[in-house]
Amino acid sequence: MMAKRLLLNCDMGESFGPWNMGLDEQVMPLVDMANIACGFHASDPVTMTRTVLLAKHAGTLIGAHPSYPDLVGFGRRSLQCHPQEVVAMVQYQIGALDGIARAHDMKVSYVKPHGAMYNDMMRDHDILRAVLEGVTQYDRTLPLMLMATADNRAVKAIAEEFGALLMFEAFADRAYDEHGFLVPRTVAGAVYHDEARILQQSLRLAEAGVVTTLDGAEVALAADTLCVHGDNAESVQAVQHIRAALDRLYTGKDA
Amino acid sequence: MMAKRLLLNCDMGESFGPWNMGLDEQVMPLVDMANIACGFHASDPVTMTRTVLLAKHAGTLIGAHPSYPDLVGFGRRSLQCHPQEVVAMVQYQIGALDGIARAHDMKVSYVKPHGAMYNDMMRDHDILRAVLEGVTQYDRTLPLMLMATADNRAVKAIAEEFGALLMFEAFADRAYDEHGFLVPRTVAGAVYHDEARILQQSLRLAEAGVVTTLDGAEVALAADTLCVHGDNAESVQAVQHIRAALDRLYTGKDA
Amino acid sequence: MMAKRLLLNCDMGESFGPWNMGLDEQVMPLVDMANIACGFHASDPVTMTRTVLLAKHAGTLIGAHPSYPDLVGFGRRSLQCHPQEVVAMVQYQIGALDGIARAHDMKVSYVKPHGAMYNDMMRDHDILRAVLEGVTQYDRTLPLMLMATADNRAVKAIAEEFGALLMFEAFADRAYDEHGFLVPRTVAGAVYHDEARILQQSLRLAEAGVVTTLDGAEVALAADTLCVHGDNAESVQAVQHIRAALDRLYTGKDA
Amino acid sequence: MMAKRLLLNCDMGESFGPWNMGLDEQVMPLVDMANIACGFHASDPVTMTRTVLLAKHAGTLIGAHPSYPDLVGFGRRSLQCHPQEVVAMVQYQIGALDGIARAHDMKVSYVKPHGAMYNDMMRDHDILRAVLEGVTQYDRTLPLMLMATADNRAVKAIAEEFGALLMFEAFADRAYDEHGFLVPRTVAGAVYHDEARILQQSLRLAEAGVVTTLDGAEVALAADTLCVHGDNAESVQAVQHIRAALDRLYTGKDA
Repeated sequence: MMAKRLLLNCDMGESFGPWNMGLDEQVMPLVDMANIACGFHASDPVTMTRTVLLAKHAGTLIGAHPSYPDLVGFGRRSLQCHPQEVVAMVQYQIGALDGIARAHDMKVSYVKPHGAMYNDMMRDHDILRAVLEGVTQYDRTLPLMLMATADNRAVKAIAEEFGALLMFEAFADRAYDEHGFLVPRTVAGAVYHDEARILQQSLRLAEAGVVTTLDGAEVALAADTLCVHGDNAESVQAVQHIRAALDRLYTGKDA
Repeated sequence: MMAKRLLLNCDMGESFGPWNMGLDEQVMPLVDMANIACGFHASDPVTMTRTVLLAKHAGTLIGAHPSYPDLVGFGRRSLQCHPQEVVAMVQYQIGALDGIARAHDMKVSYVKPHGAMYNDMMRDHDILRAVLEGVTQYDRTLPLMLMATADNRAVKAIAEEFGALLMFEAFADRAYDEHGFLVPRTVAGAVYHDEARILQQSLRLAEAGVVTTLDGAEVALAADTLCVHGDNAESVQAVQHIRAALDRLYTGKDA
Repeated sequence: MMAKRLLLNCDMGESFGPWNMGLDEQVMPLVDMANIACGFHASDPVTMTRTVLLAKHAGTLIGAHPSYPDLVGFGRRSLQCHPQEVVAMVQYQIGALDGIARAHDMKVSYVKPHGAMYNDMMRDHDILRAVLEGVTQYDRTLPLMLMATADNRAVKAIAEEFGALLMFEAFADRAYDEHGFLVPRTVAGAVYHDEARILQQSLRLAEAGVVTTLDGAEVALAADTLCVHGDNAESVQAVQHIRAALDRLYTGKDA
Repeated sequence: MMAKRLLLNCDMGESFGPWNMGLDEQVMPLVDMANIACGFHASDPVTMTRTVLLAKHAGTLIGAHPSYPDLVGFGRRSLQCHPQEVVAMVQYQIGALDGIARAHDMKVSYVKPHGAMYNDMMRDHDILRAVLEGVTQYDRTLPLMLMATADNRAVKAIAEEFGALLMFEAFADRAYDEHGFLVPRTVAGAVYHDEARILQQSLRLAEAGVVTTLDGAEVALAADTLCVHGDNAESVQAVQHIRAALDRLYTGKDA
C-alpha cells in the first residue's frame, strides 16, 4: 500500500481576454491541482474568477502560477530581473489570485512558477531564493512546487534557509536523462507523443518512483505530483487514462 | 469633545517603474490612510512593496486604490466595462496589494477606487454595486471609501444590499455646490490653491461637518476622512498645516 | 453593368502572442482587403509580419485597423479619450503596420478603426474628426472606411473639412433598420446566421445597392465594400459563397 | 580642419502617460540627434507627438530608439527573444515613430536600440543581425547607431552582409578601457560626474578621435556622435558646455 498518492497538476486559466487556451472545463475534474495563471503571462481577473469557480466545483486545489510580466511571450522568455523584483512580483501574483479565490471561499494552496521563471529558478539559486522569499514571506505554509531530479539535496538545503515547504513534480510526457533532468526539447525523442509511453511513465512514477531514461536505464525520481496537460482533446484523453490508471492503482480495482 | 476624528487620506504609491510621482516619504507620516495604487493605473510590485513599508514604518493604514486598467491614461479615462469585469478587477487589485502587505505583516484596511472608476461609481449605481460586490465578497469588514454629499441615503441603501461598510470622504481643496457635490474642475474657482482657504475648509469639516459653497452658503457634509495630496512641496506643506490644525483641535493644545 | 465592384473586407491578424484567432490563411485569398490589427486590441509585431506576408502572397490590400489600447477587452470597450489622444494613437498604429508592411514591400492602403473606436467615431463627431485628422496628417491619399447608412451626407461634410477620402462599408450578416443603421445586437434577429440570407444581402448590395430591413422594406445603401468574417469554418464557408456569387455577378459566368 | 563634426545625440521622449522624465525642452536645441522612445520602454503616442514637434522646432534629427517590450523595467532588462521577434519589434517601433513623424512632416533618420537591446546587440551577433535585418528591410538608408570600440571591424563586417549603414557613438561621461570598451558601471570611477572631465573627453574625441582610459593610456575611438544626457539640470548644463566647446572648435571662435 502506498502511503502517499501521486497527485496530478495541470496549468489552467491560460486564456486571456477574448482568446481561449486549454480545455479547462474538461481537464479540471480529472486533476488534483490547478496551476492558475495570475495575469502576467496569461489570464485576467475575469478568466481567473471563472477558473477558480471551475476548481471549486470540481474540488480541485488551486495554486498560483506566477510568471515574468510577458503576455506576448507567454512568460516563456527569460527576463533578467533583480531578485527583489522577483520577490515582489511573486507576492503580487499570489495575492491577486488569492484575492479572487477568497471572494469565492477558496484559497491558494501552493505556488508553481511558470515558464522562464520556473526554468530560471531551477538553474539559478538567486532566483530560487527570490521565489522562496516571495512565497514564505506571503505564507510559510504554502509549498513551492519545483522539478524533481535524481538528487534534490541542493534545492532542499536552500528551502530550509527559508523554512519553506517543497513539492516535487515529474512530467508524464518528457524524456529524462540519467541525472533525472529533462532531455531538452531540441533533442529527438525528448517529448513523448505516444500515449502508451506516457501512461507507462506515469505508472512507474506512481508505483515505484522511477523513470526510464532515453537510454533505457532507470532513475529514481521522488515526485509528489505529475504534470499533465489539457491543451487539446488528445492531451485530455491522456489525462483521463492516467487518472483512471492511478485510481485503479490506489483503489486496487477498476474505476 | 469630538467622538470621532477626521482622518486624512492621501493617494500614494503612484510611481511606476523608473518614473516617480508624489512625495510619499514626506507625506506618509502626516496622514492616517494611504490609498495605494495596485498596478492598474500606476505602481508595480516593487513600488507597492516600498510604499507598504513606508506605511508600516509610519503607522499609516493602507487601503487598496483599484482602477480601470489604463496606465498610460493614469486611470482617469472612463472605460465601459461590464459590471462583472469591475467585480473581478477590484478583487484582483485588493488581493495583489494585500499579498504584498501580508508579506510584510500588514493588511489592506479599506478600499477607495481611483479616478474614472471612482467617478463612475458615484454616478452609476451598476458600477457602485459592482465595486461593493467586489469588496464585500473579498472581505465584508473592509469599508469602501466614497464621496460625501449632502445626502448619502441612496448610496447607503445600496451598500446595505451588500452588508457593506462605508467611509465618506471630503476634499480640502475643492469647491462644493449646494448639494454637497464637487464643483466641476472646468468651473472657475473649482479648485482652491490658497492654503488659508484649504485649511479653513478642513477645519470646518472637522469641527462642524459643514462646507461653505462657492456662493457662500453652508452645506452639511458628514465626512469620515479628508482627501489630501502629496504631489509637490506646496501640497505637502498644506498637509502639514492641516495635520497640525487637526492635532490642535483634537488635543486642545499646540502640537 | 456596375462600374465598381463591391470589395470584401475582413478583420485579420487578431491573434496575440501564443493565442490564435481567426482562420486568416483560409480567408485571406477570398477577400480584397485585410483590416490588420496593430497591437492595441490584438496582434503583435510577429503576428503583424505573418499577416502582412499572407496578404502579400494572396494579393490582398492591407488596411490599418487601429483601436483603443485595450488588449484584454479586445478594443470593444469605449475609452473616453481626448481627441488629441485619438489622433496620436491612430498615427502610431498606422505607422507601426506600415513599418512592417514596408519591410516586406507592402503598404497600408486604407484605415478602418476597430470596435469601440469605430462605434464612437460613428456617433461622436469629435472622435470622427480626430480619426480623420490622424489619417489625413499621415497620408491624405489613404481612405477612411466607415459605416454606410442611408444618408452619409453628415460624415461626408466632415471628411471634406480634412480633404479626406472615404470608403463606405456594409455588413453581410447584420439586419438594417429603415435609416440604414444596424439593428442593435440585443434585438432578436439582428445578426443573420442563415447563410442564404447572408448571401442574398450581399448580392442585393452588389447588384442594386439596397438592403432589405427587418420589416421587409428596402433601403438604399451605397457601399464600396462588404465586411465579412473569418472567425470559424462556418463563416469562412459563407465568405467562399459570397466570393463565388460576386465573381459570377461581375464576370457574368460561373467561377 | 576636421572633415566631419562630432554630432551630439540624446535619449528623448522618455516620459510615459502622466509621468515625466528628462528635460527635453531644454536639451533638444543643444543636440543634433534625438533618440526618441517608441512606446516599448517609455513614451506613448501623445508623448511621441510632443517630442517630434520639439525636434521639428529645434531642427534636430530624429532617430527611433526601439526597445524590448518592458515599460516597468524601462527596457533595461535583457529579454531572451527569438531573433525574428527582434526583427519585427524593431520594424514596428521604427514605423510607429515614423508614422507620427510623417504626420508632422518629419522623418526618422537613424535607429539606435535602447538599453538591454543595445547591450545585447553589442555582445550577441544574432541580435545584431536581427536589428540590422529589421532596419535594412525597413529602409536601407537609415544608419544604425552602435557603440564605437577600438576595433569596429567585426560589426562592420556583419553590417556589410545587410548593406547597412552604421554610425558609431562614444560616451562623454563614461570611462573606457584599453580596448575602447566601457568600464562596467560596477567599477569605481566608471561614470564621470566631474564636468571638466566630461568636457575634456568630449573635446579629445572631437579633436583627435581618442579617449584617455582609466589607466591614463590613450585609445583611438572613431566616433561619429557623442551620447549626452538631459535627465536633470546638471546634465543639461554639461550639454550646454559641450555644445559651446564643440561650436568653438568647429567655427574657430567663441559662440
